[in-house]
Amino acid sequence: MSTITAISTAPGLGGIAVIRVSGHDALRYCNVIFSSKKKAFNLLDQKANTVFFGSIIKRKVEVIDEVLVSIFKAPHSFTGEDVVEISCHGSTFIQQQILQTLLEEGCILAQPGEFTQRAFMNGKMDLSQAEAVADLIASTSAASHRMALSQMRGGFSNELLKLRTQLLNFVSLVELELDFTEEDVEFADRTQLKLLATNIEKLIFRLSDSFQVGNALKNGIPVALVGETNVGKSTLLNVLLNEEKAIVSDIHGTTRDVIEDSININGITFRFIDTAGIRDTKDKIESMGIERTYQKIEQASIILWILDCTQISEHIEWLTERIEKRAVGKKIILVFNKIDKIAEEEREVLSQLFEPFVGERIYISAKNRLNTDALEKALVSAAQLPEITAGDIVVNNVRHYEALLHAHTAICRVIDGLDSGISGDFLSQDIRECMHFLGEITGQISNDEILGNIFGKFCIGK
Amino acid sequence: MSTITAISTAPGLGGIAVIRVSGHDALRYCNVIFSSKKKAFNLLDQKANTVFFGSIIKRKVEVIDEVLVSIFKAPHSFTGEDVVEISCHGSTFIQQQILQTLLEEGCILAQPGEFTQRAFMNGKMDLSQAEAVADLIASTSAASHRMALSQMRGGFSNELLKLRTQLLNFVSLVELELDFTEEDVEFADRTQLKLLATNIEKLIFRLSDSFQVGNALKNGIPVALVGETNVGKSTLLNVLLNEEKAIVSDIHGTTRDVIEDSININGITFRFIDTAGIRDTKDKIESMGIERTYQKIEQASIILWILDCTQISEHIEWLTERIEKRAVGKKIILVFNKIDKIAEEEREVLSQLFEPFVGERIYISAKNRLNTDALEKALVSAAQLPEITAGDIVVNNVRHYEALLHAHTAICRVIDGLDSGISGDFLSQDIRECMHFLGEITGQISNDEILGNIFGKFCIGK
Repeated sequence: MSTITAISTAPGLGGIAVIRVSGHDALRYCNVIFSSKKKAFNLLDQKANTVFFGSIIKRKVEVIDEVLVSIFKAPHSFTGEDVVEISCHGSTFIQQQILQTLLEEGCILAQPGEFTQRAFMNGKMDLSQAEAVADLIASTSAASHRMALSQMRGGFSNELLKLRTQLLNFVSLVELELDFTEEDVEFADRTQLKLLATNIEKLIFRLSDSFQVGNALKNGIPVALVGETNVGKSTLLNVLLNEEKAIVSDIHGTTRDVIEDSININGITFRFIDTAGIRDTKDKIESMGIERTYQKIEQASIILWILDCTQISEHIEWLTERIEKRAVGKKIILVFNKIDKIAEEEREVLSQLFEPFVGERIYISAKNRLNTDALEKALVSAAQLPEITAGDIVVNNVRHYEALLHAHTAICRVIDGLDSGISGDFLSQDIRECMHFLGEITGQISNDEILGNIFGKFCIGK
Repeated sequence: MSTITAISTAPGLGGIAVIRVSGHDALRYCNVIFSSKKKAFNLLDQKANTVFFGSIIKRKVEVIDEVLVSIFKAPHSFTGEDVVEISCHGSTFIQQQILQTLLEEGCILAQPGEFTQRAFMNGKMDLSQAEAVADLIASTSAASHRMALSQMRGGFSNELLKLRTQLLNFVSLVELELDFTEEDVEFADRTQLKLLATNIEKLIFRLSDSFQVGNALKNGIPVALVGETNVGKSTLLNVLLNEEKAIVSDIHGTTRDVIEDSININGITFRFIDTAGIRDTKDKIESMGIERTYQKIEQASIILWILDCTQISEHIEWLTERIEKRAVGKKIILVFNKIDKIAEEEREVLSQLFEPFVGERIYISAKNRLNTDALEKALVSAAQLPEITAGDIVVNNVRHYEALLHAHTAICRVIDGLDSGISGDFLSQDIRECMHFLGEITGQISNDEILGNIFGKFCIGK
């Protein structure tokens, strides 16, 4: 296996940068280009997990930089191979020069995610843990971070291991019979087998069912902003986003670049879907525009319906009916904006106007930032997401979700089979299929295409 | 002294990121938030220059990340204090969480350059070396990198130390006389003193004289592109820049963001000054536009005068005279463009047209990238920069240059004083002034304002 290298820190200028080298010859290559002031110093003779100060020398003559070099030895390293981390000054010129020098010595430039892929190949982590490394790096909210960390630390893997053990017991009971098929015996009590299968089915279902929450936490909860024009929709969005910007700017504002108009409240990401379609004449409402708004309502989990307190449209009843019809099963929050412009007692009248309407009512002034915190609280409670703690197993990866669905189908076939009394070899086949799909998640069953897909999405240097 | 912390790697997402902690309590604070799987592990008990794997725990309950922690102990660290470097996953969320956890423990967020400032304060490097750290990080060409590295490794400091020793010998000779001033003796032979002063003057002059080269290497050599419209100026610039872009993209293209239209040839940076002013009618030539072009010619070190082979303007003689007048002492390169459009023998005619003109002639076709490498060679040779090797002392910092000029003035006064036979106490005063200015460079003489100016320009985390 070749020895790979890459710049592992974020691209660009920084105080320091780290270049990682991993593989059988990592120490040997680095020893050639590293020079210490200590007499007769040899990197190959040093203990694992130690750090040395010295210089990187290019082609044995030119000093490139003064660096710190950390040594890790197989199998006690991230990749499970010998690893050297070179911590240099963060000039892009120096980073490139050191990288080039390493390539000249015989290193190969690492592919995206190749360090993590090697960790997987060398049994340092399973595939779901490796995937969590990428999720961990990409996570921008407390919830998504917690999920990724728990998965990386093996929470999900342990759960799958338990399932696998149960399935293995199950299949061995069934397959024992097959060896004695001539004799037509039943070693395994069918009632007990059914109990076992039902337990497994429940576990798999619980995992696959958590995907809805996991996906919402990872990708954000879709919130549709609905309202007529000029009700203060964009002002409200700006207020929410501004408050967020202050937080995001602390963490270098990466979220805003990736997803437009998403905000983070109490560690939960809300992804706003703008709908600018509803006008206040009946003719236009029945146009294509409103159809698109309906579609967006259907994509959302939460509907924020914003109303101008001072100008409740005359066809509000008609509108209410239409929106409610499309928002079945979704949370609707009625947001009465410009509350500072009306008297206290008028609120009651407004509320009565929407009497049959079941959604929550929030009275705000977006412009004056009045009561917008109440709206944020309402959003969080409408999200109805259980607080994720480090121990919770939440599936948030589409690949895992699909594998779990397949596994679930297989185990349901087993239960049906037990009910209809099918023969052991068919049962065995279905149990093995269930195990196969679970094995896909952890990478016990994998192929180059799957691996290429997974690690190709990593950044180089990880 | 407080314990400081900052993210030291480039901002944004990366495979890994490094958070640096420096100060008396660095180990103690990190010990609280670091958890190892080893039993009864205590960071405070560990040897210097070792690395440990473990987790960062926030408020004793929540795991933030799995990290590597490197320990360095005073005085054997970059800052000269106890230092801990936490290498975490490169999510901005994680970086911020760890930073926040450290701040909660009692760390203070580091000011820009504060780690390097502490290294200076603790005598790990002098001020010129500290300044070189920033230059090293910002360097984008081989030449500027080499200068910064040499300066950081103490080349310049050693030179100044030698000067200081000579001045100290000198001043002690002179001041010995002052102790015996009543007796009117001359311990020091005036001829020998003059020899000493002249030597020192030569050394200081050589250093300050190197600034022209140093500055050109650091900030790029200004090249004015002069020519009538439509002679292919911008095509040529694009060709030069494109060839450079390929190189620059390798080193993440930072130069282009900072200085518009600068290219790097053979490790030398050329900074192009665009002049778009010269039109082909006499009326317009005499307008404000041409005046600005003249100014730009005066700012430049090299003039690239681009001509269209197929259309040599009728007032070329008049133009030549004007340009030559402004470009006294500068290198002029005549670039005959669109050479593919004329016959071989016509070149001779062209050359004769510019007979009295002394500049070099290059025949190219920018569009067909014909002979543009010859132009690059001509630029490099016109730059007339000596190749800087690691041992060369080249001054490239305006602050150092100004201090050297002051020191030079002082030592020249000493020489004049010796010639006119002024008294020892005046001599001593001038020698001490010379030493003072040299001391400003290394930081033996400094004040908060100077330090604030210097370190304020550093990035946070260095």
